[in-house]
Amino acid sequence: MGAAAAAAAVAVVLVAFLCCGAAQVQQQQRQRQLRFDGRRGEFRVLQVADMHFADGKTTPCEDVLPQQMAACSDLNTTAFIRRVILAEKPDLIVFTGDNIFGFDATDAAASMNAAFAPAVASNIPWAAVLGNHDQESTLSRQGVMKHIVGMKNTLSQVNPTGVHVIDGYGNYNLEVHGVQGSNLVNKSLLNLYFLDSGDYSTVPSIPGYGWIKPSQQLWFQHTSSKLKRSYTNKPHPQKGQAPGLAYFHIPLPEYSSFDSSNFTGEKLEGAISSPTANSGFFTTMVESGDVKAVFTGHDHLNDFCGELTGIHLCYAGGFGYHAYGKAGWSRRARMVVASLEKTDKGSWGGVKSIKTWKRLDDEHLTAIDGQVLWSKSFSRKGM
Amino acid sequence: MGAAAAAAAVAVVLVAFLCCGAAQVQQQQRQRQLRFDGRRGEFRVLQVADMHFADGKTTPCEDVLPQQMAACSDLNTTAFIRRVILAEKPDLIVFTGDNIFGFDATDAAASMNAAFAPAVASNIPWAAVLGNHDQESTLSRQGVMKHIVGMKNTLSQVNPTGVHVIDGYGNYNLEVHGVQGSNLVNKSLLNLYFLDSGDYSTVPSIPGYGWIKPSQQLWFQHTSSKLKRSYTNKPHPQKGQAPGLAYFHIPLPEYSSFDSSNFTGEKLEGAISSPTANSGFFTTMVESGDVKAVFTGHDHLNDFCGELTGIHLCYAGGFGYHAYGKAGWSRRARMVVASLEKTDKGSWGGVKSIKTWKRLDDEHLTAIDGQVLWSKSFSRKGM
Repeated sequence: MGAAAAAAAVAVVLVAFLCCGAAQVQQQQRQRQLRFDGRRGEFRVLQVADMHFADGKTTPCEDVLPQQMAACSDLNTTAFIRRVILAEKPDLIVFTGDNIFGFDATDAAASMNAAFAPAVASNIPWAAVLGNHDQESTLSRQGVMKHIVGMKNTLSQVNPTGVHVIDGYGNYNLEVHGVQGSNLVNKSLLNLYFLDSGDYSTVPSIPGYGWIKPSQQLWFQHTSSKLKRSYTNKPHPQKGQAPGLAYFHIPLPEYSSFDSSNFTGEKLEGAISSPTANSGFFTTMVESGDVKAVFTGHDHLNDFCGELTGIHLCYAGGFGYHAYGKAGWSRRARMVVASLEKTDKGSWGGVKSIKTWKRLDDEHLTAIDGQVLWSKSFSRKGM
Repeated sequence: MGAAAAAAAVAVVLVAFLCCGAAQVQQQQRQRQLRFDGRRGEFRVLQVADMHFADGKTTPCEDVLPQQMAACSDLNTTAFIRRVILAEKPDLIVFTGDNIFGFDATDAAASMNAAFAPAVASNIPWAAVLGNHDQESTLSRQGVMKHIVGMKNTLSQVNPTGVHVIDGYGNYNLEVHGVQGSNLVNKSLLNLYFLDSGDYSTVPSIPGYGWIKPSQQLWFQHTSSKLKRSYTNKPHPQKGQAPGLAYFHIPLPEYSSFDSSNFTGEKLEGAISSPTANSGFFTTMVESGDVKAVFTGHDHLNDFCGELTGIHLCYAGGFGYHAYGKAGWSRRARMVVASLEKTDKGSWGGVKSIKTWKRLDDEHLTAIDGQVLWSKSFSRKGM
């Protein structure tokens, strides 16, 4: 089911390299290439924030209604993943950290295996980044990320190779190529960036959470520039830049720029739990120009999207049942759908719009707070 | 005079490299190595901000008293440099940008030659970075920086080689080594960082001034780490990090953190003319841990120093006469003096304290606003 949608969006590509002078060496690389769906011209991303998974059935829920408490455990979290996958048929599932709640997970690997099991079973590609709690069980941050990368159906990577040393674990990007059979089959039309926003500051004079470092930002800049060149290069050169989306765990300081007058969603937490220091990643993204929206977790009771300087800053809202929340305020997930425009010749072109909404874990998986994050016609005015 | 002090502080070092297998190639490199003075255990830095030099005698002054106007020109700026050099006998002169006011300079090279002439003639080493006006005459930013690097007695560099590509022109560092004949003769005891803070934003959605980019910050981080390793390595390993000072033109957004209750000096301009975007360099410096003070120009009527998270953020105040100012408010320069501690054996050790004050271009070159920026005993509490 979800698997059928995934099969449409994911092609197994065998790439043959011919090289090396007289002795030709043929190398086959199996790669799951994300691409837009050929029927609807869509690419659908499900964001799951803050599962806080621990030991499964024996791990109780937090902040649910008294009548829910007895039957509630980590298994409610994985049940919610299965429900929302069935309902939304995503082409990619992104887990934005605090996937496990390390303090309560007896075995980090076992906890991750159980937490990601619904994604693995769906046969839909998935990607994950780290939060601030993932390393608090039996594995280090590096160990957690390495374990994730070895799991089935994931496109997660520890870090890119062949560049400068990058801070953190889980900095990588994924390209979403054009529709199979269209001119843009080998172009990335939607660029997804995944970053490790760290856990806690190690600088005594800066209390609080970690931040995205210059090494990560330089990698992001270089990657964005490279993708822009590919987008505008022959064959089938495109104008400008393909839109990008960035996923990480801890909100940027700029998330505190909003109130109910200029965001969609809710801000039930008094403060934004961003790092106390501004490391400039928002500025770096504005300068690069391709990222249209950022998606974080971390604050379970904030689920809004607000726009600042052309970039939407969005929360997913808390997903996991063994995580603080608010009794009676449904756990939730965020969907993002990018849609292609039709060309004059009736084929699929570049991305036309990016929309988002949330799904609540209530009886009807109610969809709320639908909004357009970006559309090509609107953005041209500002370019 | 100033030259005598310089001769004590600057040694001409001939470095012989032996390399390359059977055929030995001998290469001699002439290098002016900054080092602490052996008599007083001091290193003295004069900061000259915003000379705004144009064409010399024919270029009038701005914002001086009516009775000063007739006889006032760019030559008052160079006369002030000569006076303050005589009075302070610096070991290094640092020009923090807007060295020339490009719009009014007929020939950029000639304007720079005249503006830096007092420094060149003093035989004191000098260093310069770019402001936002230096490229507005006949040379580009790269051209201006290349011209500076070719001038006599300067230690300025366009950019370091052998690293990743760095944004801007004029990012480099200088080491100030221990006293000649002491154990620390080959250690850098004071690290000076020079950065190009850019001119104007090229991002339509971010109006205003430029900023320090991730590529520059990564270079700074790597340099700071390398210097820390050298400082703590054999022979004569030292504890912690040598203190550092950073010089550039445009103040950081964090300069707006102060008012008269928590700074020394004056803030006669309503706003801090920092970039409107925060690119994170303050956070990067706090994380690296060695920079104790930052020195900028740009706002001619702000001349304060304020401390935030262990780093003093300082202005020099306006120096040049063909620059906006305030009639009756003297043009000024900032001095910084780092002093070494005496070891138990009566030799010179590492840096004990860093002090600053300003000199006004009045009859007596009045010194004002003396303050301690950093002292070893104090900082240890926080380390």
